[in-house]
Amino acid sequence: MFNRETYIERRKRLKESVADGIILLLGNVDSPMNCRDNTYHFRQDSTFLYFFGLNYQNLAAAIDVESGEEILFGDDFSMDDIIWMGPQESIKDKAAKSGVTKTMPSRQLSTYVKEAVQQKRKVHFNPLYRAENQLLLQELTGIAPAQQQEKASLELIHAIVALRSCKDANEIEELRTAAAAGYQMHVTAMKMATPGTWEQKIAGTIEGVAMANGNPPSFPIILSQNGETLHNHDHSNILEKGKLMLVDAGAQSTEFYASDFTRTSPVGGKFTSQQREIYEIVLAANNRATELSKPDVTYLSVHLEAAKIIASGLKEVGVMKGDVEEAVKAGAHALFMPHGLGHMMGLDVHDMEDLGQVYVGYDEETRPVNQFGTGALRMGRRLQPGFVITNEPGIYFIPALIDQWKSEGKFTEFINYDRLNAYRSFGGIRLEDDLLITNDGCELIGERIPITPEEVEAVMS
Amino acid sequence: MFNRETYIERRKRLKESVADGIILLLGNVDSPMNCRDNTYHFRQDSTFLYFFGLNYQNLAAAIDVESGEEILFGDDFSMDDIIWMGPQESIKDKAAKSGVTKTMPSRQLSTYVKEAVQQKRKVHFNPLYRAENQLLLQELTGIAPAQQQEKASLELIHAIVALRSCKDANEIEELRTAAAAGYQMHVTAMKMATPGTWEQKIAGTIEGVAMANGNPPSFPIILSQNGETLHNHDHSNILEKGKLMLVDAGAQSTEFYASDFTRTSPVGGKFTSQQREIYEIVLAANNRATELSKPDVTYLSVHLEAAKIIASGLKEVGVMKGDVEEAVKAGAHALFMPHGLGHMMGLDVHDMEDLGQVYVGYDEETRPVNQFGTGALRMGRRLQPGFVITNEPGIYFIPALIDQWKSEGKFTEFINYDRLNAYRSFGGIRLEDDLLITNDGCELIGERIPITPEEVEAVMS
Ligand SMILES: [Mn+2]
Ligand SMILES: [Mn+2]
Repeated sequence: MFNRETYIERRKRLKESVADGIILLLGNVDSPMNCRDNTYHFRQDSTFLYFFGLNYQNLAAAIDVESGEEILFGDDFSMDDIIWMGPQESIKDKAAKSGVTKTMPSRQLSTYVKEAVQQKRKVHFNPLYRAENQLLLQELTGIAPAQQQEKASLELIHAIVALRSCKDANEIEELRTAAAAGYQMHVTAMKMATPGTWEQKIAGTIEGVAMANGNPPSFPIILSQNGETLHNHDHSNILEKGKLMLVDAGAQSTEFYASDFTRTSPVGGKFTSQQREIYEIVLAANNRATELSKPDVTYLSVHLEAAKIIASGLKEVGVMKGDVEEAVKAGAHALFMPHGLGHMMGLDVHDMEDLGQVYVGYDEETRPVNQFGTGALRMGRRLQPGFVITNEPGIYFIPALIDQWKSEGKFTEFINYDRLNAYRSFGGIRLEDDLLITNDGCELIGERIPITPEEVEAVMS
Repeated sequence: MFNRETYIERRKRLKESVADGIILLLGNVDSPMNCRDNTYHFRQDSTFLYFFGLNYQNLAAAIDVESGEEILFGDDFSMDDIIWMGPQESIKDKAAKSGVTKTMPSRQLSTYVKEAVQQKRKVHFNPLYRAENQLLLQELTGIAPAQQQEKASLELIHAIVALRSCKDANEIEELRTAAAAGYQMHVTAMKMATPGTWEQKIAGTIEGVAMANGNPPSFPIILSQNGETLHNHDHSNILEKGKLMLVDAGAQSTEFYASDFTRTSPVGGKFTSQQREIYEIVLAANNRATELSKPDVTYLSVHLEAAKIIASGLKEVGVMKGDVEEAVKAGAHALFMPHGLGHMMGLDVHDMEDLGQVYVGYDEETRPVNQFGTGALRMGRRLQPGFVITNEPGIYFIPALIDQWKSEGKFTEFINYDRLNAYRSFGGIRLEDDLLITNDGCELIGERIPITPEEVEAVMS
């Protein structure tokens, strides 16, 4: 699917978007779990994958923007490595796969970078999220880890974001594969959501479903009958009848593209009328956001429209009150939806988050909003064909937050605090699909996972 | 099971075994996968778990050996944390669970350590395997990561190894739980081993079996029809009839104790006569090692006895020749078994490997052997009641290694190179059980996973 030409072309465009100097791209090394040699599943850096497609440890690359020279740094293997890890390709062969002709042993990276620094050439590097690479960069450039973030190259970041934001046909195919595995994960979870089942049993099983499709989940699975906790990685509860199980989970394709879906199902298989009432509001917000998502629309405006559906629905059930437009403008809805409508997705579930969310989700025209709730929106700027984004509205009843706002007398004109007692143990609902922006609108990536109350109950029956 | 008193007692014994100074124990932080906030499953440092039992990120502890004072360093949570991660215990409450009464905010750790250094007090620390903690230690002590390994405290290492080597009744119970999950993993894999099945599908599924029992596997799963590659984490092959599937995999209990088993099964369910012949040799070596394992026997001697069973079995099938004792003494058997018989196991699958294998597996009396094969034995010293070790003999036909030895004319008096052509695509067989050393012998941990050819074929039929 992705071939040499893909990577050569991507690097050509990268070189065209950076004015001068050297681009340094560090691949990832193994991450130790509980000792150096007992490691987590290797995950290559996504930018490194994007420009080289090489899913191996201990690689780095330098691209000389001016001369056009590209060098892959890495080492060949010893007989001992072959005994323990099997026959390995040479570094030359690896480089050839991505269309790079020049290779050097890893130890020469330091000399190469130091020479460039001495010649007063710019060395562009990304913000680094792994401490091993921070230590390596310190060794190469003398810049301490605490200073690296601010010394990262904005020019490089903008160039990479511009390239990676629009997905090509092959990338979309990968995203569809990841979506298909995500579908299996969610349907498996729904079927297991019976009273008396340990959350971890379900979370572990669907993690296995992702793995059996080729790779670990695209992010740590969120699965809980306490869905009001937004990133709940605690799976220690036993499911109880009357609760809602919120599952936010996705897979990675074999080429490491992500999916990211959320479904919320009634433990035992039937929604109560109270659950269904709130559920339908979230579903309406999700559907409306899909309708609105198309080129040239800002995702911030879609977020705010979804928020209005949430606020007006909650007004109908008596939990909110007053003018809906005013309530959303003031941010009162954020008591119930304290997060953003979605984020970009691609090789990373929060695509390119390592490069800086503000560069990925915002631009000079659309700036982040400094307000609780909408401030957490990771993606606000104008949509373009080829963008892949998540659409994930939610309604949560978070006792600690409700109590805090109530005690502060916050937004009493928009919130009926007295009515909230009936929802204290409600939990939360989130419904998330993945959208591909097309030329005139958007389409869902993958077959839609059962989402209407009827569809969900049918799967669970 | 483990309670406050357990941890208090363990720390009391630790303080008794270190003469003076301050013991600094760093817990683990989250490990980033492809960006800072998209993390791997959190795994606490095993030594930190052993002395505190606190499975949380961002903790550190200092134990003043002289005054007896114990301090847990960590921070309380904000409302924002509660919204995203749910209600959290206070640092005081966490400390209380492990019987520690004094807590301080994380930022005071630096002051605390710097004061100790200024007072010329010894600061004992372990070798660190995570770069994040290496950076932290650098900040605390000024010692650069590259120097930390050699400046780690041997006194502390020896004290910890002495304590953690002998498992108590609660720990053995945890190991049995991990073994039960490991049993499920292996039987699931055997049942899936049909021709045409993608290795990753099986590996992913059994990873899910581990997870559904509470935790990720104790180490990255080895599963391959190319079992001659000892640590084969490549699962990309489609299983073929006539091949052997080698699976080396184990689980972690909910308290993070490990299991580690290996089984080798014929793809499609029936051993060929050639496979069975080699299989029976490995099984005999495994059984003999279990018979021999008891207090006061060195595991090095058990390893060498197992090697003799391997060599004499291979002599019988015509692959080796000459005097068996001499062949093993010279290390000729290592062409077929280039690894050691086993390792200690506990909170880590290679228990305490982060502290230094030589301190865990060897002592002043039993020193590592500098010979290919036996040199890879991780555990050689005298066994004691309460030790938990793996017993994992194997026979592999590694084309690259055979070709190398043959071209070097190595051990032509012990090896019939001509006969090896018939085994070039054989693969490898390893059979691994986990042993608990008792007062007068040893016992298998957990129900024995089907291991005789008849048992294996029965599971697969
Ligand atoms: Mn999402
Ligand atoms: Mn083992």
